[in-house]
Amino acid sequence: GYGQTVRYRGAGASRAAALGAVAALVRSATGLSVASPHTGAMRYDEEHPKIPAAAITVEDADWMRRMAALGREVTVHLEMEAEMFEDVESFNVIAEIPGRELPQEIVAMGGHYDSWDVGQGVHDDGAACIAAWQALRVIQQLGLQPRRTLRVVLWTNEENGLRGGRAYRDALSDEEVANHVAAIEMDGGAERPVGFGFGVVGVDLEAEEPDAEYEAAFASLEQIGRLLGAIDASEIRRGGGGADIGPLMRSGVPGLGLRTVGEHYFDWHHTHGDTLDKVDIENFRRAMALLGVTGYVLADMPERLMPVRLIPADE
Amino acid sequence: GYGQTVRYRGAGASRAAALGAVAALVRSATGLSVASPHTGAMRYDEEHPKIPAAAITVEDADWMRRMAALGREVTVHLEMEAEMFEDVESFNVIAEIPGRELPQEIVAMGGHYDSWDVGQGVHDDGAACIAAWQALRVIQQLGLQPRRTLRVVLWTNEENGLRGGRAYRDALSDEEVANHVAAIEMDGGAERPVGFGFGVVGVDLEAEEPDAEYEAAFASLEQIGRLLGAIDASEIRRGGGGADIGPLMRSGVPGLGLRTVGEHYFDWHHTHGDTLDKVDIENFRRAMALLGVTGYVLADMPERLMPVRLIPADE
Repeated sequence: GYGQTVRYRGAGASRAAALGAVAALVRSATGLSVASPHTGAMRYDEEHPKIPAAAITVEDADWMRRMAALGREVTVHLEMEAEMFEDVESFNVIAEIPGRELPQEIVAMGGHYDSWDVGQGVHDDGAACIAAWQALRVIQQLGLQPRRTLRVVLWTNEENGLRGGRAYRDALSDEEVANHVAAIEMDGGAERPVGFGFGVVGVDLEAEEPDAEYEAAFASLEQIGRLLGAIDASEIRRGGGGADIGPLMRSGVPGLGLRTVGEHYFDWHHTHGDTLDKVDIENFRRAMALLGVTGYVLADMPERLMPVRLIPADE
Repeated sequence: GYGQTVRYRGAGASRAAALGAVAALVRSATGLSVASPHTGAMRYDEEHPKIPAAAITVEDADWMRRMAALGREVTVHLEMEAEMFEDVESFNVIAEIPGRELPQEIVAMGGHYDSWDVGQGVHDDGAACIAAWQALRVIQQLGLQPRRTLRVVLWTNEENGLRGGRAYRDALSDEEVANHVAAIEMDGGAERPVGFGFGVVGVDLEAEEPDAEYEAAFASLEQIGRLLGAIDASEIRRGGGGADIGPLMRSGVPGLGLRTVGEHYFDWHHTHGDTLDKVDIENFRRAMALLGVTGYVLADMPERLMPVRLIPADE
């Protein structure tokens, strides 16, 4: 229910300010709380006063609700230290094995190496960065050089504006975008992976007449999936992607988003508890294998996964 | 693993002080942490300096362990506000339905109404107090008056010295103790109950020759358990009891400890997260039914559950 509930955090402060509120508190969007605030992004409408806004614990929110239901007055003393700082320069981190035949054609994969300000950001999204990096390292250590370039990208600033993903796209010419065979993102935590979601912007998955190129690519991905039967991560679904690869995808690049069992991600996401102890090393290794095998095969297949149908920036 | 690990919290500070430590930090004894300290009792040996001691989060403990394993120096700035206050007067809360034939014979049931200093103490042990209280109230509302007295006791100060349970016993004459037919405690949280553990101090459950009176009582309890098949709480186990009823049991009174599935108790126990939202109302109602039915039948049976073999205080 994260998507359904998080909009109250996103838009709540300005909606409350419009009604005269001096501050806004929102129940943490989570199913698990040990008196733990689960935080995250919110946005202000320019029309209304920018009032302080905070995510409070499930326990505190429930307590206030019960007191209010009993007709009791609830008084809150709110002290916040949060503030917005000026932008500073940052950077994406890129490493690659150049393709042995078609070095200009690229499979990009990775995650974002920034995290929300609480916790260490291990599930969101540090584990993905290390998994992609280590997958590339294993391929290098095995002495493998795929036909195309296999590139790991650790994007910066996903959490606060997607600047890394945008800058990556904006630094490319249209021709370079069209040479991106696929973009792979892992940004849903390092729980046990089950496979990928495959999305291509511009392909209508609900259309009566299936898109032949998409379906052919989907069949190729299912073949790659079969290679991952030993780690039970063969499931390819229609639709998918990721925030950091979003700018590439909106330019037409096929996108793959790693999918997991999704049981506990929002237990830890954007809390002080998103730390290394929450990652099962076997699940991490499975994600590494999934990225490595998928990235390698996409970079080494005789033919491209599917042609990129370039979408100009103004569309 | 609570029993195995909590002794490091209990004895760790004095063991560390003996080796010259200026303070002791212990990893919270829990399987669940969202950066949440899980606290609890510890004790000082008189021989060693009383150094400050604190339970830290699993996350912080793991981080320190990793840093230490890497040979890094870890510096901790410890500020604590905990302090011991002088004793003040407190009290047990008692309510009863007097027996219609044998009012001097008593079935006592309840839990402790104090809690650890963090959180609200809902699983430990507020829910038990309300469940026992409400069970008695339902029996009263149904116009039922059992043969013996059915007494609810909300004990004070279980957490910090068991003063309520001790005072309850100490206020009784030996005859009054012997008139306690059974003592029932719920102090393992309000998860789904599965039945009772049945213990009698002085009965050796490992003996080659089974204790005939204990076995007859056990068979009676199994019959009571069958009444609770509809809520799947029929399981009677050998051995059991509770902290508050411990002083009664050590005087010979048969004890029953409510047992639950025990899946999440130590997720919340002694944390700021031991709050009302952690209790499933259906499970709470089952506990209420289990206490009410068991207490009522024990108080209303034609014969006592088993004779009390009084154990003098100096044994």
